[in-house]
Amino acid sequence: MDAGKLQPGPALRVSGAVLRERYHAVRARTEALAARLSPEDQQVQSMPDASPAKWHRAHTTWFFETFLLLPHQPGYRVFHQRFSHLFNSYYEAVGVRIARASRGMLTRPTADEITAYRAHVDAAMGALLEQNTPTIAALVELGLNHEQQHQELLVTDIKHAFSINPLHPVYSAAAATPAQRSAPALRWLDIPGGIHDIGHDGDGFSFDNEMPRHQALLQALRIASRPVSVGEYLEFIDDGGYRRAGLWLSDGWATVQAEGWQAPMYWEQRDGAWISYTLHGDAPLRHDEPVCHVSYYEACAYAAWAHKRLPTEQEWEVASRLHGGVKAQQDQQIRVHPRPLADGFTQDVWEWTGSAYLPYPGFRVAPGAVGEYNGKFMVNQMVLRGRSCATPPGHARPTYRNFFPPAARWQFSGFRLAEDV
Amino acid sequence: MDAGKLQPGPALRVSGAVLRERYHAVRARTEALAARLSPEDQQVQSMPDASPAKWHRAHTTWFFETFLLLPHQPGYRVFHQRFSHLFNSYYEAVGVRIARASRGMLTRPTADEITAYRAHVDAAMGALLEQNTPTIAALVELGLNHEQQHQELLVTDIKHAFSINPLHPVYSAAAATPAQRSAPALRWLDIPGGIHDIGHDGDGFSFDNEMPRHQALLQALRIASRPVSVGEYLEFIDDGGYRRAGLWLSDGWATVQAEGWQAPMYWEQRDGAWISYTLHGDAPLRHDEPVCHVSYYEACAYAAWAHKRLPTEQEWEVASRLHGGVKAQQDQQIRVHPRPLADGFTQDVWEWTGSAYLPYPGFRVAPGAVGEYNGKFMVNQMVLRGRSCATPPGHARPTYRNFFPPAARWQFSGFRLAEDV
Amino acid sequence: MDAGKLQPGPALRVSGAVLRERYHAVRARTEALAARLSPEDQQVQSMPDASPAKWHRAHTTWFFETFLLLPHQPGYRVFHQRFSHLFNSYYEAVGVRIARASRGMLTRPTADEITAYRAHVDAAMGALLEQNTPTIAALVELGLNHEQQHQELLVTDIKHAFSINPLHPVYSAAAATPAQRSAPALRWLDIPGGIHDIGHDGDGFSFDNEMPRHQALLQALRIASRPVSVGEYLEFIDDGGYRRAGLWLSDGWATVQAEGWQAPMYWEQRDGAWISYTLHGDAPLRHDEPVCHVSYYEACAYAAWAHKRLPTEQEWEVASRLHGGVKAQQDQQIRVHPRPLADGFTQDVWEWTGSAYLPYPGFRVAPGAVGEYNGKFMVNQMVLRGRSCATPPGHARPTYRNFFPPAARWQFSGFRLAEDV
Amino acid sequence: MDAGKLQPGPALRVSGAVLRERYHAVRARTEALAARLSPEDQQVQSMPDASPAKWHRAHTTWFFETFLLLPHQPGYRVFHQRFSHLFNSYYEAVGVRIARASRGMLTRPTADEITAYRAHVDAAMGALLEQNTPTIAALVELGLNHEQQHQELLVTDIKHAFSINPLHPVYSAAAATPAQRSAPALRWLDIPGGIHDIGHDGDGFSFDNEMPRHQALLQALRIASRPVSVGEYLEFIDDGGYRRAGLWLSDGWATVQAEGWQAPMYWEQRDGAWISYTLHGDAPLRHDEPVCHVSYYEACAYAAWAHKRLPTEQEWEVASRLHGGVKAQQDQQIRVHPRPLADGFTQDVWEWTGSAYLPYPGFRVAPGAVGEYNGKFMVNQMVLRGRSCATPPGHARPTYRNFFPPAARWQFSGFRLAEDV
Repeated sequence: MDAGKLQPGPALRVSGAVLRERYHAVRARTEALAARLSPEDQQVQSMPDASPAKWHRAHTTWFFETFLLLPHQPGYRVFHQRFSHLFNSYYEAVGVRIARASRGMLTRPTADEITAYRAHVDAAMGALLEQNTPTIAALVELGLNHEQQHQELLVTDIKHAFSINPLHPVYSAAAATPAQRSAPALRWLDIPGGIHDIGHDGDGFSFDNEMPRHQALLQALRIASRPVSVGEYLEFIDDGGYRRAGLWLSDGWATVQAEGWQAPMYWEQRDGAWISYTLHGDAPLRHDEPVCHVSYYEACAYAAWAHKRLPTEQEWEVASRLHGGVKAQQDQQIRVHPRPLADGFTQDVWEWTGSAYLPYPGFRVAPGAVGEYNGKFMVNQMVLRGRSCATPPGHARPTYRNFFPPAARWQFSGFRLAEDV
Repeated sequence: MDAGKLQPGPALRVSGAVLRERYHAVRARTEALAARLSPEDQQVQSMPDASPAKWHRAHTTWFFETFLLLPHQPGYRVFHQRFSHLFNSYYEAVGVRIARASRGMLTRPTADEITAYRAHVDAAMGALLEQNTPTIAALVELGLNHEQQHQELLVTDIKHAFSINPLHPVYSAAAATPAQRSAPALRWLDIPGGIHDIGHDGDGFSFDNEMPRHQALLQALRIASRPVSVGEYLEFIDDGGYRRAGLWLSDGWATVQAEGWQAPMYWEQRDGAWISYTLHGDAPLRHDEPVCHVSYYEACAYAAWAHKRLPTEQEWEVASRLHGGVKAQQDQQIRVHPRPLADGFTQDVWEWTGSAYLPYPGFRVAPGAVGEYNGKFMVNQMVLRGRSCATPPGHARPTYRNFFPPAARWQFSGFRLAEDV
Repeated sequence: MDAGKLQPGPALRVSGAVLRERYHAVRARTEALAARLSPEDQQVQSMPDASPAKWHRAHTTWFFETFLLLPHQPGYRVFHQRFSHLFNSYYEAVGVRIARASRGMLTRPTADEITAYRAHVDAAMGALLEQNTPTIAALVELGLNHEQQHQELLVTDIKHAFSINPLHPVYSAAAATPAQRSAPALRWLDIPGGIHDIGHDGDGFSFDNEMPRHQALLQALRIASRPVSVGEYLEFIDDGGYRRAGLWLSDGWATVQAEGWQAPMYWEQRDGAWISYTLHGDAPLRHDEPVCHVSYYEACAYAAWAHKRLPTEQEWEVASRLHGGVKAQQDQQIRVHPRPLADGFTQDVWEWTGSAYLPYPGFRVAPGAVGEYNGKFMVNQMVLRGRSCATPPGHARPTYRNFFPPAARWQFSGFRLAEDV
Repeated sequence: MDAGKLQPGPALRVSGAVLRERYHAVRARTEALAARLSPEDQQVQSMPDASPAKWHRAHTTWFFETFLLLPHQPGYRVFHQRFSHLFNSYYEAVGVRIARASRGMLTRPTADEITAYRAHVDAAMGALLEQNTPTIAALVELGLNHEQQHQELLVTDIKHAFSINPLHPVYSAAAATPAQRSAPALRWLDIPGGIHDIGHDGDGFSFDNEMPRHQALLQALRIASRPVSVGEYLEFIDDGGYRRAGLWLSDGWATVQAEGWQAPMYWEQRDGAWISYTLHGDAPLRHDEPVCHVSYYEACAYAAWAHKRLPTEQEWEVASRLHGGVKAQQDQQIRVHPRPLADGFTQDVWEWTGSAYLPYPGFRVAPGAVGEYNGKFMVNQMVLRGRSCATPPGHARPTYRNFFPPAARWQFSGFRLAEDV
């Protein structure tokens, strides 16, 4: 799920009132996430894969301006002539001066000007939403899901930016934490082999990479009832996991050495004890939480060490359906750190699978501007399933295909194990 | 197929005489390939992914010394104490001074010393081969297949090295070429959906990534009767293929721009006409040959332009079995350029598939030194099927899984199209 | 003159009232420069050599805290424990997380917090300045000159940051501009050979790299009465100056090719006409201004084209003394673009000389913390003389030695020609 | 002194027989140096600043072909049409495929073909040398001095190439070594201030960067009677020299950290003892030898540690003239490691001075092809004076200006100290 993972979906039937309310709720949530950030915080791009918070706020707004207001609202006046250039993440022509890695260089427009831009577009959208045609409803739903993806990125991106500041800023005060307990005992769930349906059935919103629904042949397997815990992962570290080349994929080992990895991202040892930077500030590790901020490489090395493997995305999808699905959590308040592990497939970390991100059988690129680039990310990435603590309420489902390059660690990413029968 | 793609296979039953003859034939073929090269040619490493010819000759010899002679031939004396360090492609410990990309820096041992090393090992192997135990036979067979892989790399690596020399050296005089004709008309072969067997059945040698044999569910498809031709590919170029971002995977387009790609590797325009560097010297393009030296990115862009797709490796394997298999060509003489296209699945270019290189269901890493790194390359690479003009005689089979990163172009790599029914 | 060019000078005799007034004037000027910037503008570091405006404001304040308040004001409480780490440009220990090139990553402290930091230190300094001991006066004078250096950098750094923003922000509205006229006719001033005094005589403040005063032997020369104009430089461009390797130093030509230089920094051609980005916005070139934002390499290439050479810094210093000196301009208002050329040595661009930045004969590093790094920049840089439009009032003098690497262009840097008699 | 440091000099009067003998002696010495190298050794370029031995042999030959035979020998037939492109170190046009750093990629022409090229040119030169016109004599003398420069580079380049080979090849067996003794006691020589003549007087060959002879004003100084010894340098290391940022130039310290320098190049610690790689094989350090393979940065750091400084090149030249000059050593046999220190200015290491490499007053670029690039290296380099063990016999003189970037260490470079009176 990154800035370019835009994919159109089918039209949905909802009443105009529901759509308007949903529009305002999603848009307001973005602003609530940003409200804790200073203008300086919203400016920074702390690594090439991240984007400034300000940019996320503007780019999601640009979506509605470009795909809803300009084609469907006669007489709409763009807020600023140059914004379509500044906030279009797809623009590919030669000579563009603002490369992806240079988004943090744009001090203007300021965060305040982005606030005005959002208000301008929201006002115009208010009028447009009065027309609840299927086309508009589908595009709005797509825009809202797109904005939710950027909400998650906004959180993970600012976590990285704060982490490299020696002051280790606190994004939000920590909620009172329940006392540490053990993670639930790991059980092995039996998943039967045979032909299973995979992919979204078209009922409700999905991105098009979840379709077409199709059949896949699985061999029987056993899958863990929950992801790997911090406590379990510490055993891997203590057993020399980061020093034993034989456990790693070749590219993974090269990364370990080039980057000096010795633990998950954001962990550091102080006076012999492990501390983790979180958006609630520095904190000692909790053994009952899911291990988080690990790459695909680390997930595979752990699995090799444990003599298991990762499930494929098809196995994960079938298992999750058989064992309670993925619950779309409501956030009482915005949560920015994983809760302790529970049994099942509704966790606070995305889970790496052993599947490369590739098109489903029969996948076809949608015609037109919105669909121009549907399949363009389907190489060099691995699929993650589930959801994380940063996933907005209502955004998760069992068929959701998230994807990142195998070395990525700044997302809330963990993993669970599987084994052949 | 690269320097590190070593995988053990099952023991094979052949007579001692057959094994000895085969050993000497494969070893002699390596020397025949190198005989056309000066000591300087054997020294050079023209890009990080390539290796010097001298290194290929030594590394394949190191295999027999390390896995056959040292454990199984009592009293064997190594040729040189330091060679196990210099020619071990797997060595991962910290502080190694000869990184993969620095193989071309080692001027000593000289090519002549490698010749002596090979003779020393061959002499000792002659004695060892008298014992034709199943273990030894299996390891020898593995060593010979490993050496054949390096024979192909030796050819593709020297092609790259020669290509960047303004003198464009000729590796071997061109054979008399038949007159240009049209590529055979492209037909669409119907492949039925349903459950198919995939992978090697264990009869004869295979690498372990071809196993276990398992079942896969395919949807019905149509697949081209031959790969894309040079003539067809020129239409893609002429239609702006290398300038239209919308046709490319995102990573592919970034590579096109970063590398300035405008055509397959080794092609250049002189006075308005396309010339290709070949190991027989510069030559005008032949429209009836398979397009070659293209990356996975280019294969995908062409497919998008043609409104088709690449077949998966399972589809390719099933189709090739239904339509004549992959013939293991004998080489009268060493061939270093693809012949014109013929119908079927025995071509002179490897064919990119749409499948990421991942373990088959039930794949397990073999224990012990030989198998230490079996699965370590199973990330960030795509599968190619078939064979090429540089593949040694007898080395190809329908289940063979070759694999390279999606940007690789220096292999003899082409592709064929498929489409859903 | 960069963030690390701190050098102590001798104690000065001024009354306490004068020192206090001067302290407040210099400190206020920094804030006036920053007042035109948004918090986002103050955050950005648009290239490794530049620093965020916020950082300049904090680092200059850190100087007074570290070298005045902590050692000389009993009971002084630091504003924030970590600031000495964040804003110390000299800190060299291993493991520092905030490298020079990462200053723009620090979103906290915010610009507002820096304002509070400055107020805290200014209040404490007010008390300290009541004691006007020679040591304190000397350190304060050094701190104020240091701050003035950063004022100039603040202007040049923000110019770069704004220039890469497609919106091309305006820093300050342009003053009414006099009509274009010709640059004054270039005259050749005769400078006699013989032994001349070079360097500062110790009367009034100087940096220690201007000392000791010593004698140098010059050969007679002729030097231009003014720097090269934009109009003259355009002739060089039109004559293929940026395409003729033979005119360039070898390293200069490599830079031209690697960076794609075709004109001074900030110039671009639109619809066939040259436009220059300035802090007053985009503007057509004026032929009567000094050419500016050129590197030493460009200055040398122009000189080769004109069959002249650059003067050495000794020649420049002698010539400027003989022809009116360098006037310390007062700024009515803050000026951020060079005025048209006038005769003489008081110009609005620094002038590259042909001298490498090296210690004067007899130069000695001062003992103690302030002087720890006096000579550390004396390699790989060339000397510039004079002043620029961004130099604060009162900061210029004929013996001033500014220095930058030969490829630097983001300062207001031009040059004048000389020739042997 | 590198591949591009070609500079013409004045015509010399020598008899034809002397010139012919000299031509053959210098050319033969190059071949004697290369005779100890395998074709593979001659092929390698182990770092961008180095060149293959084969290239040195060809490039020096190209000089005679291009500047002597083609313009002055009617009917001369070039050996190979493309060689002027392959072996011209000055060629600057866009689109050249063989960049300076890629010389090691050219496996053809082979070393044997270069031998034939040299013989072809030598035969033609034999005829040309019958005409002993002043122009030809001057160009030949320049070509021979140019070739001598490349002889020294051939030695230093192969030393680097061998050093990175774990086998640490021996270039020549070590001569019997006299027992270690102490370096001669360091004395401080008084050099009077005043006006001194600097530069070559035009009697005999010199490069044009040694001219024009001119006057310089020196302050009185004291200069060491010999360079710093290995024993003295070890004290600096033991005193934490490589860990104390305060001793280093800023760029020097950055290099120490980036490169992990802990000692001079080619030194390593084994089992607690220092070993140095030499062209005679690995050897323990000798305290009585000059320290060697140090950069300008290390020389300056040592001087700061010793509370001294480096002499300027003018001071060095004056001091060497007053104290016995620089003797042009004859080599009985080719020497490839510095002898123990002796008193005076004839040492086996080049000596870094504190002077940047800049034109002498009145320096002018010579017209025409040979002189095209005379001054192009006069930036970003420091001057070294003296000679080294690798300098060919007869090539050294007190006015010789060698120059390298301040981080260069692969030359035989040491330094001596000076101090103000």
